[in-house]
Amino acid sequence: MKIAILGYGVVGSGAYEVAKTADNIEVKRVLHRRAVAELGDIVTTDYDDIINDREIELVAECIGGLHPAYEYVAAAIKSGKHVVTPNKNLVAAYWNELHALADQYGVELRFTASAGGGIPWLFNLRRQSRSDEILAISGIVNGTCNYILDTMHNEPVDFTEILAKAQALGYAEKDPTADICGFDTQRKCVISANLAFGLSITEDEVPVFGIQNINAGDIKYFRQHSYTCKLLMNAGLKEYGAYAYVEPTLVGKGALEESVPANNNLISLTGNHIGTLSFYGQGAGKFPTGTSVIQDVLDIESGWGFKAADSKKINVTIDNAIESHRYYVRENGERRITEPMSVAAAHEIAAKSSDDSFFMAGIRE
Amino acid sequence: MKIAILGYGVVGSGAYEVAKTADNIEVKRVLHRRAVAELGDIVTTDYDDIINDREIELVAECIGGLHPAYEYVAAAIKSGKHVVTPNKNLVAAYWNELHALADQYGVELRFTASAGGGIPWLFNLRRQSRSDEILAISGIVNGTCNYILDTMHNEPVDFTEILAKAQALGYAEKDPTADICGFDTQRKCVISANLAFGLSITEDEVPVFGIQNINAGDIKYFRQHSYTCKLLMNAGLKEYGAYAYVEPTLVGKGALEESVPANNNLISLTGNHIGTLSFYGQGAGKFPTGTSVIQDVLDIESGWGFKAADSKKINVTIDNAIESHRYYVRENGERRITEPMSVAAAHEIAAKSSDDSFFMAGIRE
Repeated sequence: MKIAILGYGVVGSGAYEVAKTADNIEVKRVLHRRAVAELGDIVTTDYDDIINDREIELVAECIGGLHPAYEYVAAAIKSGKHVVTPNKNLVAAYWNELHALADQYGVELRFTASAGGGIPWLFNLRRQSRSDEILAISGIVNGTCNYILDTMHNEPVDFTEILAKAQALGYAEKDPTADICGFDTQRKCVISANLAFGLSITEDEVPVFGIQNINAGDIKYFRQHSYTCKLLMNAGLKEYGAYAYVEPTLVGKGALEESVPANNNLISLTGNHIGTLSFYGQGAGKFPTGTSVIQDVLDIESGWGFKAADSKKINVTIDNAIESHRYYVRENGERRITEPMSVAAAHEIAAKSSDDSFFMAGIRE
Repeated sequence: MKIAILGYGVVGSGAYEVAKTADNIEVKRVLHRRAVAELGDIVTTDYDDIINDREIELVAECIGGLHPAYEYVAAAIKSGKHVVTPNKNLVAAYWNELHALADQYGVELRFTASAGGGIPWLFNLRRQSRSDEILAISGIVNGTCNYILDTMHNEPVDFTEILAKAQALGYAEKDPTADICGFDTQRKCVISANLAFGLSITEDEVPVFGIQNINAGDIKYFRQHSYTCKLLMNAGLKEYGAYAYVEPTLVGKGALEESVPANNNLISLTGNHIGTLSFYGQGAGKFPTGTSVIQDVLDIESGWGFKAADSKKINVTIDNAIESHRYYVRENGERRITEPMSVAAAHEIAAKSSDDSFFMAGIRE
């Protein structure tokens, strides 16, 4: 199968190098704003060279961001080309539009690398959905936050100090807002929940509380009480509604999440038949993400479809009043453990607090 | 797709119930030695009713053991029917024969549930192999041993006591030899290594040291030194050979394996591109294993093939002299930690020891 890769940054170049080693795939074109010595004349700056090339059956969009990624992907689909993308912003923001378009033009749209990076999480979530009822999903999906939290549990450093170190190492962006405030995790939660439960929820339906206010005192308290703090996405489907939220979560000794080091990810599903299945690995990086993109390409090239899982679509809105647990809350310098309360109520308390350094974390029982 | 299930024990009945909920699959026949009320007239005691039925395109062998499972599976393949089986004994013992036969008759042979039970380990190992070079695999694949070891780390019980409890709970068989002496793990190692590296090794090439001699004193020592003992399968491919072995292994604080509770499994691959990917879940049980069988059926029904991964076949024998680490050794009542030594040498020491209660465990650095 002849394909085109859009963008030659970290993920695009990783996907290109992995594709070179795969039989059955030929990268005919790479869209990039300048020449690249090792690519020779397959580079183009003109997207029409790709859209108008009927031999190119699939476009792997590795540009990132919403625009022009959306326009490029939409144009590819309308030209009858399959699309693979690791772009979580795009997939979360245009879930309905992209799926409707792909259905209309009869092409495949795959985005395994958009949540979990190198981990075949979304692929296995779809595969399991075929013969099981997915009840809940949860996981560590942001490597930057996990690196920061893991280091804070191991060394007596404060948040600003370790964030600066993470930026110096390239683990955190210059503007770290999307990671530490949980928006990256929120997008991956939207994508995972939509796929798991046949929903069409959007980012603004998933309340987020990030880790930007956590401090060394919080961590000390958690360690004293044998807890480890991780930023988790959570979503589930109950008889009377669905829940979805992102918040720091205290897990106890022996939890699998406790043992996730550095910038790794761990994501779990709970199914009616299968119980809990968890997937661990590198959630980002040139080769893990590049490989994940090419795996999707190979699936499409091999004709692997997901008919049964795709047929399930339900119309449910998020109601976080249906999910409850205890919380650790630090407000105006005072710490307390609450009685079990709904996620909706806790996130409302956080939003309304007048304390700019307010921090809370859900407690997993 | 119309299928037949051979056997209506724990796994066969689980597969049947899961199949009922899957679109695209109809269980036309169940081979069982007596009538089953809920199955009505689809039960047969005569295998010819299945073999001679051209509508049945796939046979899911859930009888277990080598015979007549092998004869039934071979006959199904020769009749042009695809085969799915969770039978690790069969797949490990007849690896070459069954693969050659399936190739010859152009049918699919899938056995995801044979190592890892409900965990899609073997499936993902094959999928990852398409665009990556698998360097090593390892994991906890025997729930009985993990239950025994986990309990011994949490409570001051000795081996015989907890084995009896595991038998009472149905976690261990009346004759627990295959589990506690590591033969079950050995078979899963053979299957995983053959699939990962394109090998054709047999059980007798994989040295095994089990957990039957571990005692409360060993566990106390491990805990004092912040180690957790798990029974692991290990295999890898290096430039100059392959290694494969089964032994109790001491993992340090923070290892993912440390957090695997009760009778669960955790299995990992390390790939050149992907780094380490780990898969966690239930390694046995009616519905986890039954679902895993039906997932394989659905893959075949959907035409999911693995051309690229299947083409890789290498002719390498096992040489455990190429893999070294330190060992904990208890012999004649004395404990010691060795210098790094080869796996081949350690297993030779174990085999030659005159101490009937000799125990050793590899130390993962």
